[in-house]
Amino acid sequence: MNAEESMELDRLLFVEEPIEADEVRVHPAWLPPEAFRALGSRRVLIHGDGLLVDTVLDEVSRACARYGGRVWHSPTWDVDVDLVFALRGTDELPGAAVRAALADGGDGEPLGDEGFLLTRDGDVTVVLADAPAGLLYGLFHVVRLCAAAFDPARPAERHRPALRRRMLNHWDNVAVHPVMGQVERGYAGGSILWREGRPRDDRARLREYGRLLAASGVNAISVNNVNVGHTEARLLTDRLGDVAEIADVLRPYGIRVHLSVSFAAPIVLGGLPTADPLDAAVRTWWSVTTRRVYERIPDFGGYLVKADSEGQPGPFSYGRDHADGANLLAEALAPYGGVVHWRAFVYNHHQDWRDRSTDRARAAYDHFAPLDGRFRTNVIVQVKHGPVDFQTREPVSPVLAAMPATRLAVELQVTQEYTGQQRHVCHLGPWWSEVLRFAPWGPDGRTIADVVAGAVGGGLVAVANVGDDPFWTGHPLAQANLYTFGRLAWDPGRDPAAILDEWITLTFPPSATADPELVRRVLHEIMDDSWRTYERYTAPLGVGFMVNPGDHYGPGVDGYEYTRWGTYHFADRDGVGVDRSRATGTGFAGQYPPHWATTYESPESCPDELLLFFHHVPYGHVLHSGSTVIQHIYDTHFAGVEEVTAMRRRWQTLRGTIDPSVYERVAERLDEQVRSATEWRDQINTYFFRKSGVPDKRGREIH
Amino acid sequence: MNAEESMELDRLLFVEEPIEADEVRVHPAWLPPEAFRALGSRRVLIHGDGLLVDTVLDEVSRACARYGGRVWHSPTWDVDVDLVFALRGTDELPGAAVRAALADGGDGEPLGDEGFLLTRDGDVTVVLADAPAGLLYGLFHVVRLCAAAFDPARPAERHRPALRRRMLNHWDNVAVHPVMGQVERGYAGGSILWREGRPRDDRARLREYGRLLAASGVNAISVNNVNVGHTEARLLTDRLGDVAEIADVLRPYGIRVHLSVSFAAPIVLGGLPTADPLDAAVRTWWSVTTRRVYERIPDFGGYLVKADSEGQPGPFSYGRDHADGANLLAEALAPYGGVVHWRAFVYNHHQDWRDRSTDRARAAYDHFAPLDGRFRTNVIVQVKHGPVDFQTREPVSPVLAAMPATRLAVELQVTQEYTGQQRHVCHLGPWWSEVLRFAPWGPDGRTIADVVAGAVGGGLVAVANVGDDPFWTGHPLAQANLYTFGRLAWDPGRDPAAILDEWITLTFPPSATADPELVRRVLHEIMDDSWRTYERYTAPLGVGFMVNPGDHYGPGVDGYEYTRWGTYHFADRDGVGVDRSRATGTGFAGQYPPHWATTYESPESCPDELLLFFHHVPYGHVLHSGSTVIQHIYDTHFAGVEEVTAMRRRWQTLRGTIDPSVYERVAERLDEQVRSATEWRDQINTYFFRKSGVPDKRGREIH
Repeated sequence: MNAEESMELDRLLFVEEPIEADEVRVHPAWLPPEAFRALGSRRVLIHGDGLLVDTVLDEVSRACARYGGRVWHSPTWDVDVDLVFALRGTDELPGAAVRAALADGGDGEPLGDEGFLLTRDGDVTVVLADAPAGLLYGLFHVVRLCAAAFDPARPAERHRPALRRRMLNHWDNVAVHPVMGQVERGYAGGSILWREGRPRDDRARLREYGRLLAASGVNAISVNNVNVGHTEARLLTDRLGDVAEIADVLRPYGIRVHLSVSFAAPIVLGGLPTADPLDAAVRTWWSVTTRRVYERIPDFGGYLVKADSEGQPGPFSYGRDHADGANLLAEALAPYGGVVHWRAFVYNHHQDWRDRSTDRARAAYDHFAPLDGRFRTNVIVQVKHGPVDFQTREPVSPVLAAMPATRLAVELQVTQEYTGQQRHVCHLGPWWSEVLRFAPWGPDGRTIADVVAGAVGGGLVAVANVGDDPFWTGHPLAQANLYTFGRLAWDPGRDPAAILDEWITLTFPPSATADPELVRRVLHEIMDDSWRTYERYTAPLGVGFMVNPGDHYGPGVDGYEYTRWGTYHFADRDGVGVDRSRATGTGFAGQYPPHWATTYESPESCPDELLLFFHHVPYGHVLHSGSTVIQHIYDTHFAGVEEVTAMRRRWQTLRGTIDPSVYERVAERLDEQVRSATEWRDQINTYFFRKSGVPDKRGREIH
Repeated sequence: MNAEESMELDRLLFVEEPIEADEVRVHPAWLPPEAFRALGSRRVLIHGDGLLVDTVLDEVSRACARYGGRVWHSPTWDVDVDLVFALRGTDELPGAAVRAALADGGDGEPLGDEGFLLTRDGDVTVVLADAPAGLLYGLFHVVRLCAAAFDPARPAERHRPALRRRMLNHWDNVAVHPVMGQVERGYAGGSILWREGRPRDDRARLREYGRLLAASGVNAISVNNVNVGHTEARLLTDRLGDVAEIADVLRPYGIRVHLSVSFAAPIVLGGLPTADPLDAAVRTWWSVTTRRVYERIPDFGGYLVKADSEGQPGPFSYGRDHADGANLLAEALAPYGGVVHWRAFVYNHHQDWRDRSTDRARAAYDHFAPLDGRFRTNVIVQVKHGPVDFQTREPVSPVLAAMPATRLAVELQVTQEYTGQQRHVCHLGPWWSEVLRFAPWGPDGRTIADVVAGAVGGGLVAVANVGDDPFWTGHPLAQANLYTFGRLAWDPGRDPAAILDEWITLTFPPSATADPELVRRVLHEIMDDSWRTYERYTAPLGVGFMVNPGDHYGPGVDGYEYTRWGTYHFADRDGVGVDRSRATGTGFAGQYPPHWATTYESPESCPDELLLFFHHVPYGHVLHSGSTVIQHIYDTHFAGVEEVTAMRRRWQTLRGTIDPSVYERVAERLDEQVRSATEWRDQINTYFFRKSGVPDKRGREIH
């Protein structure tokens, strides 16, 4: 038991070697040249000036060069064109139809920094915006519409993002971490930003990334891991130039750069004896340091902080609380319009499995809800969507309903740490949509999307899933998760199936595939329900975890059961689940507003899919579905594997129809998914059969 | 769940940072200056020449310089002395009494290469040997005897090692392995041989190590890990000089150097297209390569090979068997008297946990027993003492009784991979003694010690536990395991408690401690039964494993249960254990000669301590002890922790009595042992309580 086992560990920890960009053809993702055909074959006028208008001009010029169209960049309107991109507020206004559309759908609201109007003015399609970013988003909207953008019967449309802040967090390390590698929880090769301690040379690839993000709707990224190492800490000071370079590359696509900082920076970088947020010298240090950041990067977004969490430094060391800590940084950022994203992912990670009274699910609420109202207005408390840690199924975090006087952001995980690590197809749109539509005050109340929307909402944040992999995301189909994140952040009310359809249309355009309708049908069949399929063959009924410790890939039913991480299922010979009721459990259910507190409190009213998250029940407990818990476990695990096998079979029908490199990569990963799902099925079923002694009533093989 | 968890993994994988030798005072282990007091205060004559005689002279000179004695190196006997070290075969023979002793106890046998006679000749103590190594071993014998060596009434003694080959295998890597570090399964800091790709500079420390080994009886080491990496492979050819340097340092202490080689060396180093053992070019390559080794290191010991095991290359790739492979190397070594140690640790490490018919315990026998008689005489098949992998309790490997026409060595593990990793006190002497005294053909037959002894036996081999730690072994009390290994290899029949006593006397001499008798009593109380204590709080009744995967430290009851490593316990709600009977199980029990095959076959006759190794039984099964299996699990686990707590209490009585640095190091580790043993107790008890539902009949707390 030695080197090879260790090499296996190795393999799990560092899944993929970084690939040099120039060695490979990079997949165009949702912006293949063909997506620009309708636009590029037309006569286009661009009206307005500015960095982002230049980007629009470049995009249109490239498209026209390829597809035979023509482009004018002109301050006047007297050109005979098919399409106009125009900034409002220039001296000359567009035609009467456009004015009418503006007046008609306008209801007094401006288009804002990022919104745009799309309408027809006679034979001309007009995209009108109040600010350059609006034209850029309008451009990608026209790309998505293809020929439909030029339909004479198309009514006028106004588009504004529901969420002002649509941000990706890169958990990328500058220096390679000895265990976590270049990207913590990264499953797509190396980092797209850093390589072995230095910025990557390949700025063209980074620019291409910014372009893809803009086309999905994302407008901010943080450039380094929330776990801030020594090298990464210095991005704030003597290595600020590295951040500025990234900002320069992404700026033309309307993407602002944020930085994860260490709360201990005044000590580590500034040589101060303390990082106490109430210490005058510490405040001065942050103020001066932040001023320097803005001198270099005037549109810098702000700081992202993981404090007093899993070993990261924070205000607790000085007897201060999270509001003190966050306000310290907010004060320094305020003069420049910057924000602090302060993570609510704080819990006791030295828990004793013997102590059933401590409940990690309670922690974020217990720490943060009492602080509501104490945060400065440029603090955004960034809350993981669930109370534990990005599991395949969790309830929505009660923190999101508990801080009405605080700007809140929801944090999602696009990188598939717990959802198949981009080796499994697991399309997360439906899951995120459920989270965003969840109404924590009851069915008629505001939704999570409402909480994070608008001027006071903190928006949507996600941990990125991109690396230097030629398909960007390891699994080509995982691109759809990134795309869907951006589109949901723009409009959380959209149907995730419609977004997926949009992604399919863009990514597999007619000219790149022999039969686009076949591709569309097969991809929907494979992807639409893939998150629920993943749920079926992994941890049952919301109980969570049951993964291999460390790498979090593959089953490990008792993997975390006796650890200090607070992620238990308490399965014994009689039953399974965590009692989080107020009456007899940890009381977590009581952290919700009344409707859900009542619903979750009792096993009878608790939704099946969260039963074991909230209750410890006997294996014979009958679900709303009519099945017992144990039979449900068996049935879903057999079904999950059958569904994955069907996925693979369906994919095989695309052989020869699409780009062979995409076909092969997905085919390989589906093989692995079948293998892994089978392993999950067998381990989970065997585990519960050995514990419960209850045979499968359908008599299938359990080992 | 991220960086800190990974750092914890880090900590487990790389337990200790290497320490620069010159930063620390190195503990003298069992050769403190005080051990030489009786010798050093006397008049000593040394008679004879040669490298090892010079070593004796140096040792005696140093001792006399310190304690006021005097030394002569003279070809004549006419000096008035208290002690003579003399090589027989010189012209002049010692006195009549010596001649008489030689004739008396001699029964015709020569003293051999390493043996010696100790007797009195009038007022003179005489150590007589036929070869220089005998004088060196005689010297250390005199050291151990202290004043008793000069007792006029002491009868003459003849000493010859029962085992010719007494070897340590260093699993040290030359280049730091990304996961395993500098020493695979090393728990005592860095390597004493290598450091980051190069030989260590500190040759004085290495010489000191050789001296300690000689004083314990070890006469050979292999200098690199059996898992041979790219860098290590080159020790055979262009980096042979590194090996020669080590040989030069160790030679004065009678220690030969062996090398772990890669079976793929002809390809990797020689550029041949194959490593097929029957290929003529391959044979030539090994022949030429080996000749070069001997040109450089004339007393080179030979090759150690892990082939077709856990990913290492071997003859299977060419459709050849282990005899073909071993004989290839043996042929190359034969002209120079070198040997091949060919490991029998071969098994399928891609097992499917669902398949209960494959049994890793069977593998070594199934692979090797059919090859008996096919190995050249300079092949030693090196067999792990148990059929699985150095567990705290296993039966003795049936291979050791199955190959009468083959030279066999037993491989022990001094490094405490599965026995507390030198953080726990676990004195292994009693365990090894049980193995060596085991009589595989039944109580009246030959023992394992007999099998490996003498000219045809392959001797005893152990994986070393030493690093550059100032106490050599991390845990100061783990020194006793190293010492005991050497002494048992010299005389497997010795009582391990007597050996421990010897170690205590040498290591804690009167001048270094305020109360040697207190120290002796306390150390016996702590150490004598510590292996059984360790067994009590870990995996029960011989079932094995239940450790954390990867690092193998601490409990992980299901840690290997669903892996490919073939180390299962099959616990379900009704019972636990592996059915290895012939009648209903894997048939492993049938690999033993009739006495033990019958004994192990039935749960009724199987010894309690191996019950779950051989049988799957209900929790209510009544042991020979009268307890049920489940109650035995609870009782031993509570008892184990109580014993460790008592160890710590006893150790505390030594505060102020011994070297504070030893005291503190052991005290820290006992704290960790109490913590870890408690964790073992609670996890194992909880696991089996959850599974069985049977309460502890004494009502103690199970979580």
